[in-house]
Amino acid sequence: MNTLYHYPLSPFSRKVRLCLAEKKIEVALVEERYWEQDADFLRRNPAGKIPVLKMDGRTMADSTAICEYLEETQPTPALLPRDAGARYEARRIVGWFDDKFYHEVTSKLIGERVYRKVMGTGYPDSANVKAGARAIKYHLDYLTYLLEDRRWLAGNEMSLADFAAAAHLSCLDYTSDVDWNRSDAVKDWYAKIKSRPAFRSLLADEVPGFQPAAHYADLDF
Amino acid sequence: MNTLYHYPLSPFSRKVRLCLAEKKIEVALVEERYWEQDADFLRRNPAGKIPVLKMDGRTMADSTAICEYLEETQPTPALLPRDAGARYEARRIVGWFDDKFYHEVTSKLIGERVYRKVMGTGYPDSANVKAGARAIKYHLDYLTYLLEDRRWLAGNEMSLADFAAAAHLSCLDYTSDVDWNRSDAVKDWYAKIKSRPAFRSLLADEVPGFQPAAHYADLDF
Repeated sequence: MNTLYHYPLSPFSRKVRLCLAEKKIEVALVEERYWEQDADFLRRNPAGKIPVLKMDGRTMADSTAICEYLEETQPTPALLPRDAGARYEARRIVGWFDDKFYHEVTSKLIGERVYRKVMGTGYPDSANVKAGARAIKYHLDYLTYLLEDRRWLAGNEMSLADFAAAAHLSCLDYTSDVDWNRSDAVKDWYAKIKSRPAFRSLLADEVPGFQPAAHYADLDF
Repeated sequence: MNTLYHYPLSPFSRKVRLCLAEKKIEVALVEERYWEQDADFLRRNPAGKIPVLKMDGRTMADSTAICEYLEETQPTPALLPRDAGARYEARRIVGWFDDKFYHEVTSKLIGERVYRKVMGTGYPDSANVKAGARAIKYHLDYLTYLLEDRRWLAGNEMSLADFAAAAHLSCLDYTSDVDWNRSDAVKDWYAKIKSRPAFRSLLADEVPGFQPAAHYADLDF
């Protein structure tokens, strides 16, 4: 059986979970308190991060490298377009979310308010929380701009770009940090991806001590 | 003509420069003071980061997405292995350097001591500098471990993993932050990659106000 070591509100774990589920690859999910840097976990991934996927006799880390591996070994359904230029665009948007959005928004909102409490590293830094709440508006506007002439974020086909974006936004939706009224285009896009069977496991996630927003699992939000 | 907007001591720019040079793709290098967030530059890359590559009628950002594009459109010489498992390993190591090593080492040493001065954002934070100097030792030991049974970092062929690692280490070598006496294996590996023609342009880099280490451009260091 394949195993994914993950944490519920980790956007990187969620991206891999969406990718696995969309490709219908079954995995046992094991919640990993990776910040405790347990010796067994560090043997699996010396980088000390999640997700870690055990599959095909390998123990794999780094969500980007894992998603490329899944795409190469289980190409159907394809989560990257065929044309090199379109593939570039999908990967650029994955990078936008996993690097820029993560540092400007996810780590500032989820990182300060959820992870600090769970990991016991002190109170939220309110300047960070404010900066994250400001930055998400700009990112939602960028998504709106992308969706002006595209059905999905990287073009007219769903791709890893949509999964990366939805992975971050779904974590932030859990904590009520996404203003869905800001853009109909973004809300419609999220409703589309949220209603996919691959999304169900994410909508069932719960982090003790943090109630999800009332609309979190609601497909008609 | 292709154009690469870059900054000399940016490891992400250097990775792309190595990749372009190894594939013998000519580019004009344009130094970009990207932190000034000039409107023209933001039009080229709304993420406001370097490198940005103009090529094939596209303006491309995100060093990972750019390298994958180059590998797909100009496959010779190959900078990723053929087998999916080996490709995974190369990408994992790229991620190790561009994420973990960057945040634990490069941003703490080059970021504090060079970028702060160049960007005018104040004095170096000595706690960060100390943390970076401590962390690089652990990373050099990890490279030594990888090189125990491999000729190159991801296997027996040179790959993007070597370029990502050398991109970061060459920036840190400019500021004398790499203790080459710590590991013969790492020193031998770096000597091999440093002597490639693709490396020459990096060894000619200069940042005003920062003299490179005396041995920086020396192939016999």
